[in-house]
Amino acid sequence: MIVAPRIAIDAMGGDGGPSVMVAAAARARAKHQGLSFLLFGDETVLAGECARHPGLAGHVEIVHTPDMISGEDKPSQAIRRAKTTSMGRAIAAVKAGEAHAAVSAGNTGALMAMSKLALRTMAGIDRPALAALLPTLGENDLVMLDLGANTECDSQNLVQFAVMGAAYARIVLGVEAPRVSLLNIGTEELKGTDALKDAAAMLRATPHLHMRFDGFIESDRLGRGEADVVVTDGFSGNIALKTMEGTARFVTDLLKRAFTSSLRSKAGFLLSRPALHLLRVHLDPNNHNGAVFLGLNGIVVKSHGGATADGVANAIGVAVKLASEDISRRIAEDLANFPTRASEKVA
Amino acid sequence: MIVAPRIAIDAMGGDGGPSVMVAAAARARAKHQGLSFLLFGDETVLAGECARHPGLAGHVEIVHTPDMISGEDKPSQAIRRAKTTSMGRAIAAVKAGEAHAAVSAGNTGALMAMSKLALRTMAGIDRPALAALLPTLGENDLVMLDLGANTECDSQNLVQFAVMGAAYARIVLGVEAPRVSLLNIGTEELKGTDALKDAAAMLRATPHLHMRFDGFIESDRLGRGEADVVVTDGFSGNIALKTMEGTARFVTDLLKRAFTSSLRSKAGFLLSRPALHLLRVHLDPNNHNGAVFLGLNGIVVKSHGGATADGVANAIGVAVKLASEDISRRIAEDLANFPTRASEKVA
Repeated sequence: MIVAPRIAIDAMGGDGGPSVMVAAAARARAKHQGLSFLLFGDETVLAGECARHPGLAGHVEIVHTPDMISGEDKPSQAIRRAKTTSMGRAIAAVKAGEAHAAVSAGNTGALMAMSKLALRTMAGIDRPALAALLPTLGENDLVMLDLGANTECDSQNLVQFAVMGAAYARIVLGVEAPRVSLLNIGTEELKGTDALKDAAAMLRATPHLHMRFDGFIESDRLGRGEADVVVTDGFSGNIALKTMEGTARFVTDLLKRAFTSSLRSKAGFLLSRPALHLLRVHLDPNNHNGAVFLGLNGIVVKSHGGATADGVANAIGVAVKLASEDISRRIAEDLANFPTRASEKVA
Repeated sequence: MIVAPRIAIDAMGGDGGPSVMVAAAARARAKHQGLSFLLFGDETVLAGECARHPGLAGHVEIVHTPDMISGEDKPSQAIRRAKTTSMGRAIAAVKAGEAHAAVSAGNTGALMAMSKLALRTMAGIDRPALAALLPTLGENDLVMLDLGANTECDSQNLVQFAVMGAAYARIVLGVEAPRVSLLNIGTEELKGTDALKDAAAMLRATPHLHMRFDGFIESDRLGRGEADVVVTDGFSGNIALKTMEGTARFVTDLLKRAFTSSLRSKAGFLLSRPALHLLRVHLDPNNHNGAVFLGLNGIVVKSHGGATADGVANAIGVAVKLASEDISRRIAEDLANFPTRASEKVA
């Protein structure tokens, strides 16, 4: 347990910019005693924002870093500006041990590329993966990975993702033995790619893991609360994630259209507002915020670009938990159970 | 144009069984003059059902085929029973030229395996694909393929799917030059697998196709009405399709839960019924029914298993259109534009 977690914030990233990032820090600080921040961004702007949140006084250090990564910057361009940008410096602070974790709401591709280059992949992991929390109809959110870091994956990658996802779920969802499934186009053992079948066989054959491996799951069951962790390659994961976003918006757009189609519907809409509010809260990415780049020597949490201060505060909360409960140690423990680890195979 | 299209019906398949399939035939017949049917199934049962629809008299031939494929039958088991089952016989009727197309609401895997074995893949196509119509917020439905017939696909397969999907869209959506996109995890040229990048390059480089190739599309845009045809490998397609189904159900379940959470919401719910009805109609698979197995020497349309008589009648309508407007010829025309056709590559 870390008594005084220190979080590096890329205060320039995200749609809301410094005002949202600093407000988020203030909210996180109000919840977590002992928390302090390294804020990277324009000094004058950040000092102004900090002045609006007296609770931050004495718990914030501003590092003047006016240059920033935009949403349009390609990862390859971004890494060349690691030393001058708020994003790059926040990650570097984690590497240097000046902060326990970094949080950014900026460009995901740039954040992944910079993090990977600066922090390097942890021992026993071939490729880091992007994990996120998704809403379900069950009690807990769902941890899903990889969501786009790796277009193609072999069975070893998938097994490592399962181990990393389970460690993440144990910490963030508080589940002792998370129910882990591999995303597939059927639940029978013969379905899917060889990589999926081999990964399932490895996970089935390995005892003493801190998870319950449940085999395959189909993507129409993702929101049912039947799994705590769903593992997939980055291509399928990205397709599933964006299909969810698109379909949720599709249905709510249709609803809006339907509700405004007649006076009677409009009246119904007004009466139903609390119900629709509940729907919005449940689907709001701010309440499931904190995508994390797992498998590095350091913790980097990606907040949704359009997140509110509450959303970013949730992401900071995730960063604090991962740092405090030492996710890397938990991943290493489970990896030790596999007879042929990917790192040995490569060596 | 076929003056008197004759459709082979697997009258035993689907959740509704013979009563739904025969009622569907009656509805389709009421719409399409000149239509006639070959009904495969239990003679006594079918004769009883036909008697309830006087409009079918004189336009139906019943072929006694009491044996049927169940939802649990594996494709490998099903193909051994091609000669004795209503599904197998309906497909055989297409092969023998006794019917212009076959329609079944039964087991998809069995239908695909049987169709492929009986009808064989058409010249110039390496692998057939499963295409379906999906709802959008635009004017037209979306044609998406492959939805699960081919777990892994190379660039040639994807190009052939694009050609087949465009031909399908021209006939079923009535669009002269369908807007075709490849499903990817980004829209930049460098994104995705080599198969996707190569397929995009081939489609871009080929003139005179009956389509407008728009490059890549991400899965959050599927329902926006921006594409008429979306092409993907069967794994990603199946993931996207089932994620859509799951998310739509997730949102409507949440809504139901929200609407029943207070008396005020309940009152709102009652007032909003017409609006919600519109939503249901739009999402109802019966209104987008008619998945089709493209790339065979013959037309096989798969109706949704839970489809109503109207839904199956829509599927029959699709079968009639595809037969009347000679989809195979249209596919062959576009394939001829490619300098290196898959069939030549293989030979």
